[in-house]
Amino acid sequence: MNYITVPVSVLNRYICQIFEQIGLNKQDQQQAAAVLLAADLRGIESHGLARLSGYIRLWEKKRINSKPNIQIVHELATTATVDGDKGLGLVIAPFAMDLAISKATQYGSAWVAVRNSNHFGIAAYHAMKALPNDMIGIAMTNASPLVAPTFSIERMLGTNPMCFAFPAKKHDPIVVDMATAAAANGKLEIAQRANKSIPEGWLQTKEGMASTDPNELKKGGSLLPLGSDIAHGSHKGFGLSATVDILTAVLSGANFGPWVPPFVSFLEPAENPVGKGIGHFFGAIRIDGFRAKEDYYHAIDTWIERFKNAERKSTEQPVIIPGEPEMQAHRNYEKTGIPINEIVYNDLKKLAAELNISMEF
Amino acid sequence: MNYITVPVSVLNRYICQIFEQIGLNKQDQQQAAAVLLAADLRGIESHGLARLSGYIRLWEKKRINSKPNIQIVHELATTATVDGDKGLGLVIAPFAMDLAISKATQYGSAWVAVRNSNHFGIAAYHAMKALPNDMIGIAMTNASPLVAPTFSIERMLGTNPMCFAFPAKKHDPIVVDMATAAAANGKLEIAQRANKSIPEGWLQTKEGMASTDPNELKKGGSLLPLGSDIAHGSHKGFGLSATVDILTAVLSGANFGPWVPPFVSFLEPAENPVGKGIGHFFGAIRIDGFRAKEDYYHAIDTWIERFKNAERKSTEQPVIIPGEPEMQAHRNYEKTGIPINEIVYNDLKKLAAELNISMEF
Repeated sequence: MNYITVPVSVLNRYICQIFEQIGLNKQDQQQAAAVLLAADLRGIESHGLARLSGYIRLWEKKRINSKPNIQIVHELATTATVDGDKGLGLVIAPFAMDLAISKATQYGSAWVAVRNSNHFGIAAYHAMKALPNDMIGIAMTNASPLVAPTFSIERMLGTNPMCFAFPAKKHDPIVVDMATAAAANGKLEIAQRANKSIPEGWLQTKEGMASTDPNELKKGGSLLPLGSDIAHGSHKGFGLSATVDILTAVLSGANFGPWVPPFVSFLEPAENPVGKGIGHFFGAIRIDGFRAKEDYYHAIDTWIERFKNAERKSTEQPVIIPGEPEMQAHRNYEKTGIPINEIVYNDLKKLAAELNISMEF
Repeated sequence: MNYITVPVSVLNRYICQIFEQIGLNKQDQQQAAAVLLAADLRGIESHGLARLSGYIRLWEKKRINSKPNIQIVHELATTATVDGDKGLGLVIAPFAMDLAISKATQYGSAWVAVRNSNHFGIAAYHAMKALPNDMIGIAMTNASPLVAPTFSIERMLGTNPMCFAFPAKKHDPIVVDMATAAAANGKLEIAQRANKSIPEGWLQTKEGMASTDPNELKKGGSLLPLGSDIAHGSHKGFGLSATVDILTAVLSGANFGPWVPPFVSFLEPAENPVGKGIGHFFGAIRIDGFRAKEDYYHAIDTWIERFKNAERKSTEQPVIIPGEPEMQAHRNYEKTGIPINEIVYNDLKKLAAELNISMEF
C-alpha cells in the first residue's frame, strides 16, 4: 500500500474545515480534530482520519448533531451522567472527562457516565487527560455489536475497549488501551484488504465454527471475546466486555448489548432502542489520594524499569510496557508528519470535494 | 476423588476454633470464616478451606499477625490507604471494603487501597458487599509472581484477579470475578492431581516453549496472561494484570511485580522488598449517582434477560451470565452442606490435631 506523509498542522486545518462545513463551532472543531489526530499520531490508523468520513455520513443521516446541547442530567459530589444530545463523541467525551477530573480535584476521585453519544475516537486520548493532573485516568465505551458471548453465535457486544492511564515521572506513562475482543475489528480489516488469513480464535462463522477467513464477519459471523474459547478464558473476555457495556450504558441510560446503534451509516439503529445513543464511562483518581506523590512516582518508575528488564524469551525482543509503542509513534509522527495510506487519502479527497473545501495535501 | 459433605455451621465452628487457637478475636474469627466459606459455597474450592492451613503456616513463620492494628494511613474524601499490619487479608479486606462503601454513601463513589496484607480469599466476597447498598463493587488483589509478561519468561506478576459486582433486582447480581491469567493456578493443580494434560496456552516452560504438562510450572515455567499468545491478545492480559498490580500496590505502597511475597510458607519473601506485604484495591459506586435506582434496575434486568436469551451455538448450552454458576452453587451448598475432597479433609484433620481442637466431621 502506498503512503503519503502529511504534517500534523496541515491535517489539523483540513479536519477543522470539514467539521466547520457541517456546522461545528471553532472550539468543537479543534477538539474533534485533536482526538482524531491523537489516534493517527499514536499509530492507531483505524481510529483517526480513516473514520472522518464515517462521522460525516452519520451527520448526513441526521444521526449526529453538530450543535449539541451537552448537559449534566444527574449528579452527586463524585458522579455524574452527561447527555451528549447526539453530538460527536469526539466532543462529548472530553467534556465528560474534564468533569471527572474537576470533581476528582475536589474529592479525590470521580466517575462520569455518558449517554446519547457516538464513537469517541481512541479511549487513550480521554484517559490520558488525567495524567498532567497527577491522576490515573480511565475511559471506556460500548460500540456496535460484533462480538458473541461465550456459548453464543449472536453479535451481542461491541469490541468495548477499556483504557487505564497511569502517570510516571522518569518514564513515559503506562497506558493500557485495549479492545475486550480477541482482536479489534481494525485488524480484521487489514487482513481483508491484504487478502490474508487470520489466526484461528479471532472470529467464528455464523454457525459458530472456527475460521481463519477474515471475511466471515461480513457473512454473519461474529468476533470472539478476549481468550477466544472457553478453555483459554473467553468467559473472562465476555465478562470484561459485559462490564464495559454495563458501566457505559446501563448506568448512563444509553443503549446496551445488541441495541447499540451501528457506527456505519448504511446500517439502521434498532427500532426499539432501550436507551439513547451509545455510552461512555470516565474516571479520574488522584494519586495523592493514597500516598505522597513523590512516593507514587518513585514506585511507578521502579515498576517500569523492573518490567522493562524482565528476562526475555528472545534476546532481541524486550518486554513492551503498555503504551510504549504508541508514545514512540507519537514522538516520531509529530516531527515527520503522519503517514496516510492511499485508501484513506482517496476518501479524504472525495470528502473535500463533496464539502467544497480546499485540500493542501 | 472422594468427598465428604459437611454442614456450613459445622465448618464455621471448625474454622473459628482454628483461628481462635492462633489468637484472633471473636469478631475476626467470624469474619475470616465467612470469607473462606464464601469461596467453598460458591464452588471455588481452591480459595476456601483448601487454603486454611496455608494461612496457619504463614502465621507459624510470623509472616501473619493474628492481632493486627489495621489503620487508615492516608485519605481524602473519597480515597484512602489502609495498612493491614501483616494481618489476615480475610479480615483486612472487609475493613477496607466497608470503608469504601461508607465513603461512597457520603460522596457517591470511593476507592480504598491496602498495603501490608496477604491473601484475601475470593475477590467476589469483597466486591459483593456493595450490592445490598445499591452500589457497584470492585475488588482486586495482586499475588505471588507466577505469570510472565508477553515476550518474557520471568515470573513477574500474580494471577492478579479483578472483580466487578453489579446489583440486579429480578435476577441474581452480575459478578465478574476473574484471574487475569489464561488459567488460574487452581486449574493447574487439579490437572496435576489428576495427572492430566492441560490445553496449550496456559503456561510456558522455563525456556518459553509451549507445553501441555501441568508440572512445568513447578519446573520453573510460568503461567501466561489471558490471551495466551501475542496473536490472541496476551498483551491485553498482561495490561490488565499490570493494571491490577499498579492499583493494588504502586498506589498503596505494597510490594509489586516480582517482589510480591509468596503465599506459601516454604518460599521466603524477597530480601529487598519495595513495599509492605501484598496490596488490594476496593471500589464502591452508587448506582443512583448516575440515574434513578429503579431505572438502573429495570435496565440491568433487561440486560440479563436479553443476554440469557442470546442465540445459542449449541441448543443445550445457554449463555452463562457472569456469576450465575457461583450463585447456584451457593444456594445448593447452603442447603446440602459443602463437599470437601479427601486431600483437603486430611489436611484439616491434621491441622485440628496440631492445634489441639476437636473436629465434628
